[in-house]
Amino acid sequence: MDSITIKDVARICGVGVSTVSRAINNHPDINPETKNRILQVIRENDYIPNNSARNLKRTVSRSIVVLIKGIDNPFFSSMIRIIEAETQKARYSFILHRVDLMEDEMDVAMEVIKEKKPKGIIFLGGYFSHSYEKLKKLDVPFVLVTIAIADPKEREQYSSVSVDDFQESYKMVSYLCSQGHTRIGILAADEGDESIGKLRFEGYLKALRDHGIRPDPRLFFHSAPDAECYTMGNGYRLMNQVLASGEDMTALFAVSDSIAIGACKAVFDAGKSVPEDYSIAGFDGLDMAQYYNPSITTIRQPVEDMALAAIRLLFDVIHDSANNRQQVFKGQLIEGNSIRRIENG
Amino acid sequence: MDSITIKDVARICGVGVSTVSRAINNHPDINPETKNRILQVIRENDYIPNNSARNLKRTVSRSIVVLIKGIDNPFFSSMIRIIEAETQKARYSFILHRVDLMEDEMDVAMEVIKEKKPKGIIFLGGYFSHSYEKLKKLDVPFVLVTIAIADPKEREQYSSVSVDDFQESYKMVSYLCSQGHTRIGILAADEGDESIGKLRFEGYLKALRDHGIRPDPRLFFHSAPDAECYTMGNGYRLMNQVLASGEDMTALFAVSDSIAIGACKAVFDAGKSVPEDYSIAGFDGLDMAQYYNPSITTIRQPVEDMALAAIRLLFDVIHDSANNRQQVFKGQLIEGNSIRRIENG
Repeated sequence: MDSITIKDVARICGVGVSTVSRAINNHPDINPETKNRILQVIRENDYIPNNSARNLKRTVSRSIVVLIKGIDNPFFSSMIRIIEAETQKARYSFILHRVDLMEDEMDVAMEVIKEKKPKGIIFLGGYFSHSYEKLKKLDVPFVLVTIAIADPKEREQYSSVSVDDFQESYKMVSYLCSQGHTRIGILAADEGDESIGKLRFEGYLKALRDHGIRPDPRLFFHSAPDAECYTMGNGYRLMNQVLASGEDMTALFAVSDSIAIGACKAVFDAGKSVPEDYSIAGFDGLDMAQYYNPSITTIRQPVEDMALAAIRLLFDVIHDSANNRQQVFKGQLIEGNSIRRIENG
Repeated sequence: MDSITIKDVARICGVGVSTVSRAINNHPDINPETKNRILQVIRENDYIPNNSARNLKRTVSRSIVVLIKGIDNPFFSSMIRIIEAETQKARYSFILHRVDLMEDEMDVAMEVIKEKKPKGIIFLGGYFSHSYEKLKKLDVPFVLVTIAIADPKEREQYSSVSVDDFQESYKMVSYLCSQGHTRIGILAADEGDESIGKLRFEGYLKALRDHGIRPDPRLFFHSAPDAECYTMGNGYRLMNQVLASGEDMTALFAVSDSIAIGACKAVFDAGKSVPEDYSIAGFDGLDMAQYYNPSITTIRQPVEDMALAAIRLLFDVIHDSANNRQQVFKGQLIEGNSIRRIENG
């Protein structure tokens, strides 16, 4: 496993060591041709950047930490795959660090920064609405992914990647109305949610009102505060509450596909059917929604594009902190077979 | 975020710094009472072990690398969650490193060791049957998880955690036979597979033979070598080949739940039903198998127990390399609604 050193690469290419370093670190400030030649030489000679040696010098590791709240959420699996791939390409270590449901992600972040000295952090999921002051104190570049910051003025100060959860939920519930449904329940996040769960709930309320339907609190089914919200098990429990409530409903908007799938299963186990007895809509656009029987009508988030954007945005911020920006992606309503049309509704 | 140093902890406890270090690192060679007192003081004083300082001294990081082949496999998601949790508890960094389908995991491992100097490696998925020589050269403790080593003599030399894939597949296919099925196809890994895919295929062959059924190669549906095998998309494609083949079959054994779910969807899309037209069995025991409609009859691997065993075994090997051992877990056949019984079969 003998490999050449960074000095050898510099000598072969006729450039300085710092230029080789810039090429390796994907720094923007380098002539593309030079960079290509350097990377070519590196590939041909099996040069492996020696992180340990670099650590000794810089006392920092070249790692990206992904702090994830809701590691069971399959929506995050696709994201992790892509973020890991990009991190690997850039020759950073990809450190995955889970945040427990009841932990404050900012406290965890500060501990992680102290321990692992990452070059950047991606926050996947979680709640930040009460943590603006702490966010300001984070001295490591970071990007918030699928996390809502309620206050628009605050929002502009942080890099983020998401869909417009309010608008996309509005779109889905409007679609349910357009299919003739008027008694539309919601399988929602917990009542105290201050992140995307809240925005999706507000999109639901607004869509109902704009279609002349008064929201009926008896049709709101919120997750328990201590439940892993975006899971099939939670959807199953919530739908059993719906069935036990005796409330009259023709459709339900589940705030994630996992919840929708669990809800469908509860309907089947009760000897009823989807969409005939209950139309059920989801959110996220998981593969699973497409392969379910019936396929779930959902809002597809462009998860690959979002993950790519998140890691690239993070590298941009690492290289130039002025690059802070908010990227909002468009969701797409995918019609499955889980919604029936009510004629003369 | 000021915190006390390891020296402060040692002073408060009236022990040496090395004793504190042993307590933090979960070293077996320490009096349990002393260890508890040290950990208590650490908790009360928010002491955070300073990895960077330690790196400077030792030139190694305190990290566990999980090398994963098949990051899309939802079976691994539960494992990652648990392994990450245990790694975090032990105050190691959890580095996730994906191995591409066509990459040799041993080459990747050697590069990762050189770059990241981990304390240990967990291999999740992949093929090692042609890499014994390379495995022997790995100078970092490691555990193989859900990876088959065909040669029993070789197997004994490495720590591993798995079910008996041959025996569990045998169990499932015997169950299909007991339900009266005689024309049983298989949705299998690619023909060149030398790992669990091969063992599950061999379990299928043996079960058929032991039930007086001659295996019929026209009922073998192998994955393409370049396909991500254990995915719903692959199951969907394979089942469409079954449908196009015109071969007469009443049941199919899919070598994973993801494949089984994709296969079910292909059956539905062809206007046919499960289990009436095709009985479909899976393997793994994913949550999804239970929530699917119909629920999938499967072999449940005790994924939580296996993940816990893997990380604990790894820590054991790190602390004492003589602790090498092979842990084989029992699977459990879970009856869903995806298999029909053929009377007078």
